[in-house]
Amino acid sequence: MSGRLSVVGIGPGGPDQLTGEARDAIAGARQFFGYAPYLDRLELEAGQVRHGSDNHQELARASAALDMAAEGHDVAMISGGDPGVFAMAAAVCEAIENGPPHWRALDVVIVPGITAMLAVAARVGAPLGHDFCALSLSDNLKPWTIIEKRLEACAGAGLVLALYNPVSKARPWQLGRAFEILRRVLAPETLVIFGRAVGRPEERIRIAPLREADASLADMATCVIIGSTETRLIDRPGRPPLVYSPRSSPRPSK
Amino acid sequence: MSGRLSVVGIGPGGPDQLTGEARDAIAGARQFFGYAPYLDRLELEAGQVRHGSDNHQELARASAALDMAAEGHDVAMISGGDPGVFAMAAAVCEAIENGPPHWRALDVVIVPGITAMLAVAARVGAPLGHDFCALSLSDNLKPWTIIEKRLEACAGAGLVLALYNPVSKARPWQLGRAFEILRRVLAPETLVIFGRAVGRPEERIRIAPLREADASLADMATCVIIGSTETRLIDRPGRPPLVYSPRSSPRPSK
Repeated sequence: MSGRLSVVGIGPGGPDQLTGEARDAIAGARQFFGYAPYLDRLELEAGQVRHGSDNHQELARASAALDMAAEGHDVAMISGGDPGVFAMAAAVCEAIENGPPHWRALDVVIVPGITAMLAVAARVGAPLGHDFCALSLSDNLKPWTIIEKRLEACAGAGLVLALYNPVSKARPWQLGRAFEILRRVLAPETLVIFGRAVGRPEERIRIAPLREADASLADMATCVIIGSTETRLIDRPGRPPLVYSPRSSPRPSK
Repeated sequence: MSGRLSVVGIGPGGPDQLTGEARDAIAGARQFFGYAPYLDRLELEAGQVRHGSDNHQELARASAALDMAAEGHDVAMISGGDPGVFAMAAAVCEAIENGPPHWRALDVVIVPGITAMLAVAARVGAPLGHDFCALSLSDNLKPWTIIEKRLEACAGAGLVLALYNPVSKARPWQLGRAFEILRRVLAPETLVIFGRAVGRPEERIRIAPLREADASLADMATCVIIGSTETRLIDRPGRPPLVYSPRSSPRPSK
């Protein structure tokens, strides 16, 4: 029972988005699990073994990694962004809860990373500068009715929204429907940011008012941030605009 | 107009929580602004100049940094955690919007960091493993009525809550009042995590059910995470428990 499982966040893109702690965890591990495109981003040495897997295999991947750690190996589970935000840390916990009792004795370390919404926000200014929420638009693991209710509740309460998993081949209509719901609650000029693959060569940032926000601007690698009524855009001659949510909310007039 | 302002997140604690991008931004800057205790965490070289300031001086600090960048200096604004989450990036944007027009021509770069809720979550498992929100409990810059409304809306919609700025000397009662409000919406056994100063020597993690959650467990350096109905605790013999929010929500029964 001397093995260890590190669940490591490598951030949204380039190698300079890893923390020192994540680098050390990767250097110290010998067996690497994860969605294959995330493993492709690592520069592994001889003796470091890849076990890449497809998307939608989170529980099986977690179980295989725990099994190998239980055999005494130093195992890393590689997660894009932060492992705790719509990523592998919850799947590992779920596998431990439902797995053999000896998995509970394993040394499990979770190493945080820069999650997509933070990277997208940094590229455009500070749209998450005040109260916000992070919602997954995937209805693979929860009913769509819950997602609609959360969109309405959070937008209605004045939070900025960061939407993860906005679209996929199997979920083509959900983001468009989310924009429809939000147009009922938010003003047409509310700012929407489409941030794709920040830090990677294919990075693309688009800013649009909600009335023009089109689901075709997003793909699987996109995080969509929808401002609140307070979120503002600063035009800058010769530079991209800044988008930010002020730290203060106006006091209600008496 | 050749200066640059980098707004750099250094994460919640130790030096191994910085990204490579943050390290590079710090190495390249010559003038350092920020809350003095954050500057204390840096190992600056000869020729790198500190301009530390007190808390509650965000706008003045941002303006001073922008002024110096406009003079052609390489300036870094150091932020704990992530600069975009209840931190300096929004203050810098606000200063630019309301400042002299030539500030809009400056090169402003925001370097994301590990924000407190991600670091706290990683220490205990994956409590932010599904939909969640980040709310500031400070009523210095927004009315308390808005905070109450947001707590009710987010907890009622089934989100996990991460509370920033839970208490301070000038705001002693707000967290206790928040627990009162949440006890009306959430079950008494809902899990609450108090995560303090993660990655620093004074780190402390406490987990309590909502019925026993006491505001005295938090201070200015604490991020409080309040689970949803779904959030679960896994007991582990000889190890601290894991807390996680499952990736899936139950389908409503027909």
